[in-house]
Amino acid sequence: MDRYLITGFSGFVSRHFLEFLEGLQKRVSVLGLDLVQPDFGSHRLGHIQLGFEKVDLLDRERLEKIIFKFQPNFILHLASYSSVAFSWVNPVLSFMNNTNIFLNVLEAVRSANSRIRILSVGSSEEYGDLLGRKKMFHEEDILCPVSPYAVARVSQEMLSKVYVKGFGLDIVLTRSFNHIGPGQKETFVVASFAKRLVEMKKSGSSFSKLMTGDTSLIRDFVDVRDVVRAYDALLKKGRGGEIYNICSGTGYSLAEIIRQMASILEMQVITEMDKKLIRPSDNRMIIGSNEKMLRDIGWEPKISMKKSLEDVIHYWNQIDR
Amino acid sequence: MDRYLITGFSGFVSRHFLEFLEGLQKRVSVLGLDLVQPDFGSHRLGHIQLGFEKVDLLDRERLEKIIFKFQPNFILHLASYSSVAFSWVNPVLSFMNNTNIFLNVLEAVRSANSRIRILSVGSSEEYGDLLGRKKMFHEEDILCPVSPYAVARVSQEMLSKVYVKGFGLDIVLTRSFNHIGPGQKETFVVASFAKRLVEMKKSGSSFSKLMTGDTSLIRDFVDVRDVVRAYDALLKKGRGGEIYNICSGTGYSLAEIIRQMASILEMQVITEMDKKLIRPSDNRMIIGSNEKMLRDIGWEPKISMKKSLEDVIHYWNQIDR
Repeated sequence: MDRYLITGFSGFVSRHFLEFLEGLQKRVSVLGLDLVQPDFGSHRLGHIQLGFEKVDLLDRERLEKIIFKFQPNFILHLASYSSVAFSWVNPVLSFMNNTNIFLNVLEAVRSANSRIRILSVGSSEEYGDLLGRKKMFHEEDILCPVSPYAVARVSQEMLSKVYVKGFGLDIVLTRSFNHIGPGQKETFVVASFAKRLVEMKKSGSSFSKLMTGDTSLIRDFVDVRDVVRAYDALLKKGRGGEIYNICSGTGYSLAEIIRQMASILEMQVITEMDKKLIRPSDNRMIIGSNEKMLRDIGWEPKISMKKSLEDVIHYWNQIDR
Repeated sequence: MDRYLITGFSGFVSRHFLEFLEGLQKRVSVLGLDLVQPDFGSHRLGHIQLGFEKVDLLDRERLEKIIFKFQPNFILHLASYSSVAFSWVNPVLSFMNNTNIFLNVLEAVRSANSRIRILSVGSSEEYGDLLGRKKMFHEEDILCPVSPYAVARVSQEMLSKVYVKGFGLDIVLTRSFNHIGPGQKETFVVASFAKRLVEMKKSGSSFSKLMTGDTSLIRDFVDVRDVVRAYDALLKKGRGGEIYNICSGTGYSLAEIIRQMASILEMQVITEMDKKLIRPSDNRMIIGSNEKMLRDIGWEPKISMKKSLEDVIHYWNQIDR
């Protein structure tokens, strides 16, 4: 029986990963770790033997004990302060809760001295600002991180490589692009737009003005349900030490996303830029190539942007009831 | 009057930096920070108004207060757990005492909101293993760090760039190559060889066997007295956001260094490799180009390898008395 240790267990991606596992209809054991209790009461988990421990991953001693006791064969490392915006406000907390926690996971596995496969989740932000130089990011591209968050993720990736080569750990790496999907917190841009548009729709105002950051930014959004399918495939079939882009391969401007959501909601929306929402440095365009995932793992995204946005809007419609 | 804040104050490089400053015969104010008290009792510091505070740079609150109170115009950030070997033994401590302490310095300066020029000292180890691909490292080369220490230094460098571009901090960066010179601790390779050779010489044994790691490794050694002259020049004339190699431009194998020291000491030495001293991954050859320092700053090294080794041997002769 596969044994998954999942960090960042109480988050959005983890919740979808559990649903994915449940869908496999195979008995597995899962131990979740997070700073906060998960809110998974409503989920029926027939095939999953589920445990949870509240732990700060900066507490390495405790982490070592947990890993020694649970003896996972997979570690899905989802824990992250993954907000670029937050990293500009508190670079130290962002760095520690990305790089330092990951280093603690690696050290705990090294001290356990067992063959655990780790999925190190990285970010498309690592590519950084190559506007005009690159249309699409491939795994072998040079990295030019432009935010504290991006630096933390590149550091994590470099540590992974050293632990693979120097200590023989079994780590598969991703650079995951922007996620969308039902259940995402409104601190993320598409969720934030969706929530506010749904509220406007319900208030019945005919004239809807949405305050935004820079909506000309182009991002590659991948549905969280496609993401978790990729993560499980990488844990089982990825090559150790290799990096894989997890992305849709298509870029949408934030303005286009708003337009599509307005269309689904049958609303007229105008946007206005709030300068407070503009970040010190930001990448103009981030689009990834997912050729390697298709070629080596046989994975490609299945969920269309339209379907993702419909489900996101449906989610906020329900929440706001 | 220039005001220098020096971290890693009780170390080898700092001591030589103070001697350099004293040699300038100009009144300056220096505040030293370190975990341990310096051992500078024997130094006459006629022109330097000197203070010291015992502080752990992981204590950001205290660091902020110190910077706010001292109001330096220069920060020479020498603090580092700079041993590659130690980083393989304790990657977490190595990482925290390189990257995290540096991030705290940056945050303290950002919160002080003043125009302080910072020298971020990096390492040639950042270039990593490009054997067969590169004969000599230039500042624009791709970085392939292969040890935890090297990763920590690359992370520090990436953070510097983000703080320059995103927060407007004034940071000049170095990649400093292997140091040699009198006063270096025996945890560093050349000092270790010198100390043991001097001991053998004094014991009068005709047959001297030196246990070593891999002596075929080639490194670019630069005398610490040339290094500190470069650091002061960069604080005063370096371009913000730019990286500068601090190196001799010449590579010596460790075997050749041992041969030269044996010649100075008029000894016959044979070496034997101790497998315990071989590291998990190591760079075969690290030689830097110092063209940028010459072109932009007008700096070049002045002290020959022979002079450096003579002074190192003289130092150990005195210590061992």
